[in-house]
Amino acid sequence: MIICIGREFGSGGHEIGKEVADRLGFIFYDRTLVEEALSRSTIPPEELERADEKKHNPWLHRIWYDAQNEELRGLSANDMLFSIHSQLITELASEDNCVFIGRCADYILQNAGIERISLFIAAPFQDRVKRKMGLLRMNEKSTITLVRKTDKERKAYYDYYTGRSWGKPHNYDFCINSSNYGIQRTAEVLAEKLAQM
Amino acid sequence: MIICIGREFGSGGHEIGKEVADRLGFIFYDRTLVEEALSRSTIPPEELERADEKKHNPWLHRIWYDAQNEELRGLSANDMLFSIHSQLITELASEDNCVFIGRCADYILQNAGIERISLFIAAPFQDRVKRKMGLLRMNEKSTITLVRKTDKERKAYYDYYTGRSWGKPHNYDFCINSSNYGIQRTAEVLAEKLAQM
Repeated sequence: MIICIGREFGSGGHEIGKEVADRLGFIFYDRTLVEEALSRSTIPPEELERADEKKHNPWLHRIWYDAQNEELRGLSANDMLFSIHSQLITELASEDNCVFIGRCADYILQNAGIERISLFIAAPFQDRVKRKMGLLRMNEKSTITLVRKTDKERKAYYDYYTGRSWGKPHNYDFCINSSNYGIQRTAEVLAEKLAQM
Repeated sequence: MIICIGREFGSGGHEIGKEVADRLGFIFYDRTLVEEALSRSTIPPEELERADEKKHNPWLHRIWYDAQNEELRGLSANDMLFSIHSQLITELASEDNCVFIGRCADYILQNAGIERISLFIAAPFQDRVKRKMGLLRMNEKSTITLVRKTDKERKAYYDYYTGRSWGKPHNYDFCINSSNYGIQRTAEVLAEKLAQM
Protein backbone atom coordinates (compact mmCIF):
# COMPACT_ATOMS: atom_id res chain seq x y z
CA MET A 1 0.00 0.00 0.00
CA ILE A 2 1.30 3.41 -1.03
CA ILE A 3 0.02 6.56 0.65
CA CYS A 4 0.68 10.03 -0.76
CA ILE A 5 0.01 13.03 1.43
CA GLY A 6 -0.28 16.62 0.26
CA ARG A 7 -0.65 19.22 2.98
CA GLU A 8 -1.16 22.88 3.74
CA PHE A 9 1.71 24.41 5.69
CA GLY A 10 1.04 24.11 9.40
CA SER A 11 -1.79 21.59 9.03
CA GLY A 12 0.28 18.83 10.65
CA GLY A 13 0.18 16.73 7.47
CA HIS A 14 3.82 15.79 7.94
CA GLU A 15 3.31 14.64 11.54
CA ILE A 16 0.14 12.76 10.59
CA GLY A 17 2.01 10.98 7.79
CA LYS A 18 4.86 10.05 10.15
CA GLU A 19 2.48 8.71 12.78
CA VAL A 20 0.47 6.73 10.20
CA ALA A 21 3.72 5.24 8.80
CA ASP A 22 4.91 4.31 12.30
CA ARG A 23 1.60 2.71 13.22
CA LEU A 24 1.35 0.71 9.99
CA GLY A 25 5.07 -0.14 9.84
CA PHE A 26 5.46 1.66 6.50
CA ILE A 27 8.59 3.45 5.28
CA PHE A 28 8.29 7.23 5.53
CA TYR A 29 9.65 9.55 2.85
CA ASP A 30 9.62 13.30 3.29
CA ARG A 31 12.59 15.63 2.94
CA THR A 32 14.72 12.46 2.92
CA LEU A 33 13.76 12.17 -0.77
CA VAL A 34 16.13 15.07 -1.44
CA GLU A 35 18.98 13.24 0.26
CA GLU A 36 18.20 10.18 -1.81
CA ALA A 37 18.27 12.36 -4.93
CA LEU A 38 21.72 13.81 -4.19
CA SER A 39 23.55 10.68 -5.29
CA ARG A 40 21.81 10.79 -8.66
CA SER A 41 23.16 14.15 -9.72
CA THR A 42 26.48 15.97 -9.69
CA ILE A 43 25.08 19.44 -9.07
CA PRO A 44 25.83 21.01 -5.67
CA PRO A 45 23.65 19.55 -2.88
CA GLU A 46 22.66 23.01 -1.62
CA GLU A 47 21.19 23.79 -5.05
CA LEU A 48 19.01 20.68 -5.01
CA GLU A 49 17.97 21.34 -1.43
CA ARG A 50 16.96 24.89 -2.29
CA ALA A 51 14.88 23.54 -5.18
CA ASP A 52 12.86 21.11 -3.04
CA GLU A 53 9.11 21.54 -3.58
CA LYS A 54 9.62 24.73 -5.53
CA LYS A 55 8.84 25.58 -9.11
CA HIS A 56 11.86 27.22 -10.77
CA ASN A 57 11.87 30.97 -10.68
CA PRO A 58 11.88 32.19 -14.29
CA TRP A 59 13.67 35.39 -13.19
CA LEU A 60 16.54 33.46 -11.64
CA HIS A 61 16.68 30.68 -14.13
CA ARG A 62 20.03 28.99 -13.84
CA ILE A 63 20.71 26.03 -16.11
CA TRP A 64 22.87 23.19 -14.82
CA TYR A 65 25.00 20.73 -16.69
CA ASP A 66 24.90 17.43 -14.96
CA ALA A 67 28.06 15.45 -15.64
CA GLN A 68 26.56 12.18 -14.44
CA ASN A 69 23.19 12.02 -16.14
CA GLU A 70 22.81 13.06 -19.75
CA GLU A 71 19.04 13.38 -19.50
CA LEU A 72 19.38 16.06 -16.85
CA ARG A 73 21.75 18.32 -18.76
CA GLY A 74 20.51 21.81 -19.42
CA LEU A 75 17.72 21.78 -16.81
CA SER A 76 17.14 24.10 -13.87
CA ALA A 77 17.84 22.56 -10.44
CA ASN A 78 14.07 22.46 -9.86
CA ASP A 79 13.26 20.64 -13.08
CA MET A 80 16.21 18.34 -12.43
CA LEU A 81 14.98 17.51 -8.92
CA PHE A 82 11.45 16.85 -10.18
CA SER A 83 12.84 14.52 -12.82
CA ILE A 84 14.99 12.62 -10.29
CA HIS A 85 12.08 12.46 -7.84
CA SER A 86 9.83 11.03 -10.55
CA GLN A 87 12.20 8.08 -11.07
CA LEU A 88 12.98 7.70 -7.38
CA ILE A 89 9.37 7.76 -6.13
CA THR A 90 8.33 5.23 -8.78
CA GLU A 91 11.18 2.89 -7.78
CA LEU A 92 10.60 3.21 -4.03
CA ALA A 93 6.85 2.65 -4.43
CA SER A 94 7.43 -0.68 -6.13
CA GLU A 95 9.76 -1.87 -3.37
CA ASP A 96 7.72 -1.62 -0.18
CA ASN A 97 4.69 -0.12 1.58
CA CYS A 98 5.37 3.54 2.17
CA VAL A 99 4.10 7.03 2.88
CA PHE A 100 5.25 9.94 0.69
CA ILE A 101 4.93 13.52 1.85
CA GLY A 102 4.43 16.06 -0.94
CA ARG A 103 6.78 16.12 -3.98
CA CYS A 104 3.84 15.45 -6.34
CA ALA A 105 4.08 11.74 -5.46
CA ASP A 106 0.33 11.27 -6.05
CA TYR A 107 0.65 12.54 -9.60
CA ILE A 108 3.94 10.77 -10.35
CA LEU A 109 2.59 7.40 -9.24
CA GLN A 110 -0.76 7.78 -10.99
CA ASN A 111 1.12 8.61 -14.18
CA ALA A 112 3.30 5.54 -13.71
CA GLY A 113 0.16 3.40 -13.33
CA ILE A 114 0.97 2.53 -9.70
CA GLU A 115 -2.00 2.33 -7.32
CA ARG A 116 -1.84 4.73 -4.41
CA ILE A 117 -4.13 6.38 -1.91
CA SER A 118 -3.85 10.13 -2.11
CA LEU A 119 -4.73 12.34 0.82
CA PHE A 120 -4.68 16.06 1.42
CA ILE A 121 -4.46 17.45 4.94
CA ALA A 122 -5.88 20.94 5.46
CA ALA A 123 -6.75 23.15 8.42
CA PRO A 124 -8.22 26.64 8.86
CA PHE A 125 -5.65 29.38 8.28
CA GLN A 126 -5.76 30.77 11.83
CA ASP A 127 -5.20 27.32 13.35
CA ARG A 128 -2.17 26.78 11.15
CA VAL A 129 -0.71 30.16 12.05
CA LYS A 130 -1.22 29.48 15.74
CA ARG A 131 0.40 26.07 15.49
CA LYS A 132 3.44 27.32 13.59
CA MET A 133 3.84 30.29 15.98
CA GLY A 134 4.21 27.82 18.81
CA LEU A 135 6.51 25.46 16.95
CA LEU A 136 8.79 28.10 15.43
CA ARG A 137 8.57 30.63 18.26
CA MET A 138 7.85 33.40 15.79
CA ASN A 139 5.56 36.40 16.15
CA GLU A 140 2.13 36.41 14.51
CA LYS A 141 2.93 38.77 11.67
CA SER A 142 5.99 36.86 10.46
CA THR A 143 4.16 33.54 10.83
CA ILE A 144 1.23 34.75 8.73
CA THR A 145 3.69 35.79 6.02
CA LEU A 146 5.51 32.45 6.21
CA VAL A 147 2.31 30.36 6.04
CA ARG A 148 1.01 32.35 3.06
CA LYS A 149 4.37 32.18 1.26
CA THR A 150 4.87 28.45 1.80
CA ASP A 151 1.34 27.57 0.65
CA LYS A 152 1.86 29.76 -2.40
CA GLU A 153 5.14 28.02 -3.22
CA ARG A 154 3.63 24.57 -2.79
CA LYS A 155 0.70 25.47 -4.99
CA ALA A 156 2.94 26.93 -7.70
CA TYR A 157 5.18 23.86 -7.56
CA TYR A 158 2.34 21.31 -7.67
CA ASP A 159 0.30 23.11 -10.32
CA TYR A 160 3.34 23.64 -12.55
CA TYR A 161 4.59 20.06 -12.54
CA THR A 162 1.21 18.30 -12.54
CA GLY A 163 -1.08 20.64 -14.50
CA ARG A 164 -3.59 20.13 -11.67
CA SER A 165 -4.77 22.38 -8.90
CA TRP A 166 -3.19 21.90 -5.46
CA GLY A 167 -5.60 21.40 -2.56
CA LYS A 168 -8.73 20.98 -4.71
CA PRO A 169 -10.73 17.98 -3.45
CA HIS A 170 -11.21 16.30 -6.85
CA ASN A 171 -7.41 15.75 -7.16
CA TYR A 172 -7.26 13.56 -4.07
CA ASP A 173 -9.03 10.48 -2.80
CA PHE A 174 -9.77 12.16 0.53
CA CYS A 175 -9.13 15.53 2.13
CA ILE A 176 -9.11 15.81 5.89
CA ASN A 177 -9.37 18.85 8.12
CA SER A 178 -6.86 18.15 10.91
CA SER A 179 -8.36 20.78 13.22
CA ASN A 180 -11.45 18.72 13.94
CA TYR A 181 -9.89 15.81 15.77
CA GLY A 182 -6.44 17.32 16.27
CA ILE A 183 -3.26 15.95 14.76
CA GLN A 184 -2.75 12.94 17.03
CA ARG A 185 -6.34 11.69 16.85
CA THR A 186 -6.54 12.28 13.07
CA ALA A 187 -3.44 10.13 12.62
CA GLU A 188 -4.85 7.38 14.85
CA VAL A 189 -8.22 7.26 13.06
CA LEU A 190 -6.52 7.40 9.66
CA ALA A 191 -4.10 4.57 10.48
CA GLU A 192 -7.01 2.49 11.77
CA LYS A 193 -9.10 3.05 8.61
CA LEU A 194 -6.16 2.41 6.29
CA ALA A 195 -5.32 -0.82 8.10
CA GLN A 196 -8.86 -2.03 7.30
CA MET A 197 -8.54 -1.36 3.56
CA MET B 1 -26.00 12.24 14.16
CA ILE B 2 -26.29 15.07 11.66
CA ILE B 3 -24.51 14.87 8.31
CA CYS B 4 -24.13 17.90 6.05
CA ILE B 5 -23.07 17.33 2.46
CA GLY B 6 -21.74 19.98 0.09
CA ARG B 7 -21.17 18.84 -3.47
CA GLU B 8 -19.89 19.86 -6.86
CA PHE B 9 -22.56 19.64 -9.57
CA GLY B 10 -22.48 16.18 -11.16
CA SER B 11 -20.31 14.62 -8.45
CA GLY B 12 -23.17 12.42 -7.27
CA GLY B 13 -23.16 14.06 -3.83
CA HIS B 14 -26.94 14.07 -3.77
CA GLU B 15 -27.21 10.34 -4.62
CA ILE B 16 -24.48 9.52 -2.10
CA GLY B 17 -26.34 11.47 0.59
CA LYS B 18 -29.62 9.69 -0.26
CA GLU B 19 -28.00 6.25 -0.16
CA VAL B 20 -26.20 7.01 3.12
CA ALA B 21 -29.48 8.24 4.65
CA ASP B 22 -31.34 5.11 3.45
CA ARG B 23 -28.66 2.78 4.79
CA LEU B 24 -28.47 4.49 8.17
CA GLY B 25 -32.21 5.10 8.44
CA PHE B 26 -31.72 8.86 8.63
CA ILE B 27 -34.14 11.50 7.33
CA PHE B 28 -32.97 13.04 4.07
CA TYR B 29 -33.36 16.73 3.31
CA ASP B 30 -32.49 18.18 -0.08
CA ARG B 31 -34.78 20.31 -2.25
CA THR B 32 -37.56 19.28 0.12
CA LEU B 33 -36.22 22.02 2.41
CA VAL B 34 -37.71 24.55 -0.01
CA GLU B 35 -41.13 22.92 0.26
CA GLU B 36 -40.81 22.99 4.03
CA ALA B 37 -39.95 26.69 3.78
CA LEU B 38 -43.03 27.58 1.72
CA SER B 39 -45.40 27.44 4.66
CA ARG B 40 -43.26 29.92 6.57
CA SER B 41 -43.60 32.75 4.11
CA THR B 42 -46.34 34.40 2.11
CA ILE B 43 -44.28 35.23 -0.97
CA PRO B 44 -45.07 33.27 -4.17
CA PRO B 45 -43.69 29.69 -4.09
CA GLU B 46 -42.05 30.06 -7.50
CA GLU B 47 -40.01 32.98 -6.17
CA LEU B 48 -38.69 30.93 -3.26
CA GLU B 49 -37.98 27.97 -5.54
CA ARG B 50 -36.05 30.17 -7.93
CA ALA B 51 -33.97 31.49 -5.02
CA ASP B 52 -32.90 28.03 -3.80
CA GLU B 53 -29.10 27.80 -3.37
CA LYS B 54 -28.58 31.11 -5.11
CA LYS B 55 -27.17 34.37 -3.86
CA HIS B 56 -29.44 37.25 -4.77
CA ASN B 57 -28.57 38.99 -7.99
CA PRO B 58 -27.82 42.64 -7.14
CA TRP B 59 -28.93 43.66 -10.67
CA LEU B 60 -32.35 42.09 -10.22
CA HIS B 61 -32.81 42.91 -6.61
CA ARG B 62 -36.50 42.65 -5.81
CA ILE B 63 -37.58 43.30 -2.25
CA TRP B 64 -40.50 41.34 -0.82
CA TYR B 65 -42.91 42.25 1.90
CA ASP B 66 -43.81 39.17 3.83
CA ALA B 67 -47.22 39.51 5.40
CA GLN B 68 -46.74 36.56 7.76
CA ASN B 69 -43.31 37.13 9.21
CA GLU B 70 -42.24 40.58 10.28
CA GLU B 71 -38.56 39.62 10.40
CA LEU B 72 -38.57 38.78 6.72
CA ARG B 73 -40.08 42.04 5.49
CA GLY B 74 -37.97 43.97 3.06
CA LEU B 75 -35.62 41.12 2.12
CA SER B 76 -34.88 39.63 -1.30
CA ALA B 77 -36.36 36.16 -1.88
CA ASN B 78 -32.84 34.72 -1.57
CA ASP B 79 -32.09 36.38 1.75
CA MET B 80 -35.55 35.42 2.94
CA LEU B 81 -35.02 31.77 1.99
CA PHE B 82 -31.63 31.69 3.70
CA SER B 83 -33.18 33.13 6.83
CA ILE B 84 -36.03 30.59 6.81
CA HIS B 85 -33.60 27.75 6.10
CA SER B 86 -31.42 28.80 9.01
CA GLN B 87 -34.32 28.38 11.44
CA LEU B 88 -35.65 25.27 9.74
CA ILE B 89 -32.34 23.40 9.55
CA THR B 90 -31.59 24.17 13.20
CA GLU B 91 -35.02 22.88 14.25
CA LEU B 92 -34.90 19.72 12.11
CA ALA B 93 -31.38 18.89 13.30
CA SER B 94 -32.50 18.86 16.91
CA GLU B 95 -35.40 16.50 16.15
CA ASP B 96 -33.80 13.44 14.57
CA ASN B 97 -30.75 11.95 12.82
CA CYS B 98 -30.59 13.39 9.33
CA VAL B 99 -28.62 14.18 6.20
CA PHE B 100 -28.75 17.71 4.74
CA ILE B 101 -27.73 18.38 1.14
CA GLY B 102 -26.27 21.85 0.53
CA ARG B 103 -28.13 24.98 1.73
CA CYS B 104 -25.14 25.95 3.94
CA ALA B 105 -26.38 23.49 6.57
CA ASP B 106 -22.79 22.86 7.78
CA TYR B 107 -22.35 26.56 8.52
CA ILE B 108 -25.84 27.12 9.94
CA LEU B 109 -25.49 24.23 12.40
CA GLN B 110 -21.95 25.10 13.43
CA ASN B 111 -23.13 28.64 14.14
CA ALA B 112 -26.01 27.27 16.18
CA GLY B 113 -23.56 25.18 18.22
CA ILE B 114 -25.02 21.88 16.97
CA GLU B 115 -22.55 19.06 16.30
CA ARG B 116 -22.51 17.80 12.75
CA ILE B 117 -20.21 15.95 10.38
CA SER B 118 -19.57 18.01 7.28
CA LEU B 119 -18.58 16.38 4.01
CA PHE B 120 -17.83 17.69 0.56
CA ILE B 121 -18.19 15.43 -2.47
CA ALA B 122 -16.06 16.33 -5.49
CA ALA B 123 -15.09 14.69 -8.77
CA PRO B 124 -12.90 15.67 -11.73
CA PHE B 125 -14.62 18.10 -14.09
CA GLN B 126 -14.66 15.75 -17.09
CA ASP B 127 -16.22 12.93 -15.07
CA ARG B 128 -18.97 15.24 -13.88
CA VAL B 129 -19.70 16.47 -17.39
CA LYS B 130 -19.85 12.90 -18.69
CA ARG B 131 -22.19 11.85 -15.91
CA LYS B 132 -24.58 14.77 -16.38
CA MET B 133 -24.58 14.29 -20.18
CA GLY B 134 -25.89 10.78 -19.63
CA LEU B 135 -28.43 11.77 -17.00
CA LEU B 136 -29.80 14.85 -18.74
CA ARG B 137 -29.33 13.64 -22.34
CA MET B 138 -27.66 16.88 -23.27
CA ASN B 139 -24.77 17.50 -25.67
CA GLU B 140 -21.27 18.07 -24.33
CA LYS B 141 -21.08 21.80 -24.96
CA SER B 142 -24.33 22.62 -23.15
CA THR B 143 -23.42 20.27 -20.30
CA ILE B 144 -20.02 21.94 -19.81
CA THR B 145 -21.78 25.31 -19.62
CA LEU B 146 -24.35 23.98 -17.16
CA VAL B 147 -21.76 22.36 -14.86
CA ARG B 148 -19.61 25.53 -14.80
CA LYS B 149 -22.65 27.75 -14.20
CA THR B 150 -24.09 25.61 -11.40
CA ASP B 151 -20.75 25.32 -9.59
CA LYS B 152 -20.33 29.07 -9.90
CA GLU B 153 -23.80 29.70 -8.46
CA ARG B 154 -23.23 27.31 -5.57
CA LYS B 155 -19.90 28.89 -4.76
CA ALA B 156 -21.35 32.43 -4.92
CA TYR B 157 -24.25 31.35 -2.70
CA TYR B 158 -22.11 29.55 -0.10
CA ASP B 159 -19.37 32.17 0.03
CA TYR B 160 -21.88 35.03 0.32
CA TYR B 161 -23.93 33.59 3.15
CA THR B 162 -21.11 31.94 5.11
CA GLY B 163 -18.09 34.17 4.47
CA ARG B 164 -16.17 30.96 3.80
CA SER B 165 -14.86 29.42 0.62
CA TRP B 166 -16.95 26.66 -0.98
CA GLY B 167 -15.13 23.41 -1.74
CA LYS B 168 -11.94 24.28 0.16
CA PRO B 169 -10.90 21.28 2.31
CA HIS B 170 -10.38 23.23 5.55
CA ASN B 171 -14.12 24.13 5.66
CA TYR B 172 -15.22 20.52 5.89
CA ASP B 173 -14.40 17.52 8.07
CA PHE B 174 -13.75 15.34 5.02
CA CYS B 175 -13.76 15.77 1.26
CA ILE B 176 -14.24 12.74 -0.93
CA ASN B 177 -13.56 12.27 -4.64
CA SER B 178 -16.51 10.17 -5.84
CA SER B 179 -14.74 9.14 -9.05
CA ASN B 180 -12.36 6.80 -7.27
CA TYR B 181 -14.79 4.22 -6.00
CA GLY B 182 -17.81 5.35 -8.00
CA ILE B 183 -20.99 6.74 -6.50
CA GLN B 184 -22.51 3.50 -5.22
CA ARG B 185 -19.33 2.19 -3.57
CA THR B 186 -18.50 5.60 -2.07
CA ALA B 187 -21.95 5.68 -0.47
CA GLU B 188 -21.54 2.14 0.89
CA VAL B 189 -18.09 2.79 2.38
CA LEU B 190 -19.25 6.12 3.80
CA ALA B 191 -22.36 4.63 5.43
CA GLU B 192 -20.23 1.86 6.91
CA LYS B 193 -17.68 4.29 8.37
CA LEU B 194 -20.34 6.65 9.71
CA ALA B 195 -22.15 3.76 11.37
CA GLN B 196 -18.94 3.01 13.30
CA MET B 197 -18.59 6.56 14.62
